[in-house]
Amino acid sequence: MDYPSKLIENAVNQIAKLPGIGKKTALRLALHLIRDKAENTTALTEALINLRAKIRFCTTCNNISDETICAICLSHKRDQAILCVVEDAKDVMAIENTSQFNGVYHVLGGVISPMNGVGPSDLKIESLVSRLNRSESEIKEVILALSPTMEGDTTAFYINKRIKDLALRVSVIARGIPIGGDLEYADEITLGRSIIGRTLFT
Amino acid sequence: MDYPSKLIENAVNQIAKLPGIGKKTALRLALHLIRDKAENTTALTEALINLRAKIRFCTTCNNISDETICAICLSHKRDQAILCVVEDAKDVMAIENTSQFNGVYHVLGGVISPMNGVGPSDLKIESLVSRLNRSESEIKEVILALSPTMEGDTTAFYINKRIKDLALRVSVIARGIPIGGDLEYADEITLGRSIIGRTLFT
Repeated sequence: MDYPSKLIENAVNQIAKLPGIGKKTALRLALHLIRDKAENTTALTEALINLRAKIRFCTTCNNISDETICAICLSHKRDQAILCVVEDAKDVMAIENTSQFNGVYHVLGGVISPMNGVGPSDLKIESLVSRLNRSESEIKEVILALSPTMEGDTTAFYINKRIKDLALRVSVIARGIPIGGDLEYADEITLGRSIIGRTLFT
Repeated sequence: MDYPSKLIENAVNQIAKLPGIGKKTALRLALHLIRDKAENTTALTEALINLRAKIRFCTTCNNISDETICAICLSHKRDQAILCVVEDAKDVMAIENTSQFNGVYHVLGGVISPMNGVGPSDLKIESLVSRLNRSESEIKEVILALSPTMEGDTTAFYINKRIKDLALRVSVIARGIPIGGDLEYADEITLGRSIIGRTLFT
């Protein structure tokens, strides 16, 4: 496709780098921004720049947070004995939405995926292991709430291998979620049931 | 949905203002940017800021252009006697892709849409009429290449009413394109045929 302007071409190429957005959608978005009010583009770019520059992660659970330690880790109402391991901040949001879990989280920041060059060292697995090993740790159970995909299963298997010698109950969420599906798109009832119906890791 | 950070919430709200992007996709894109290299966010936002700040339009045809007058309007190889009226810069790109048209363009910048508050004065219709009225104008035919939707038809009808007293052949592209479809998604053969098979505006 020949673009009438280098500015358009550059914008389209940058937008199309985002996951799930192709060149046609990128062009549509770029032309929308040109037609739209200039302040909307300013608001969008400022939000993205601020996001990338100022975003912080909870030093305990690695969830996105505006503070050093997030509200969930600090809360006295949360059960510090149950730790839920998830891939991503959006999985925390999805599980919080079910109101079926009152423990704390550990956000891995991804799953093991050799295809995409993501190994265990790229994830917050070491920090999980040392968190569980800490003498003051109250954690009695680790729930592995990863998507039931190849990558999620591999990650769960790896984590279980690393922590199985600790005196912990290790569980996985029930496979009420369709295999091959993506955890964030499960409806709240299915996701809530899968937390209640968790089974021992075998 | 409760967001773990104001930065995320603000970014999601801004991204979700883009057409065809909902809150879930916006969240996915925001989390992708956080995980991705910082320079990719910088490249994206710079491309968008440059696009919005530096984008220019051809003073003749209103197409996106890096120059005051675009390459198509300046070209001696183009037939200055045939003018193709389109909604948008992406329609110019789609028609250029068919290699079936060698005339020049006039980009309206939208179509008449009372539902969205777009009237004739919001579009480059006056500049089209004065371009056609100019004494040095070589234009003999006007092709109305608008999407065969309610808004496109209304716009074609309005333009025809404004220019029907000029000694011009006014044609519309053949309705080989499915009614209700969007011009930019037509395949090249259908779109090319529709230019060859244009009929007199009735």
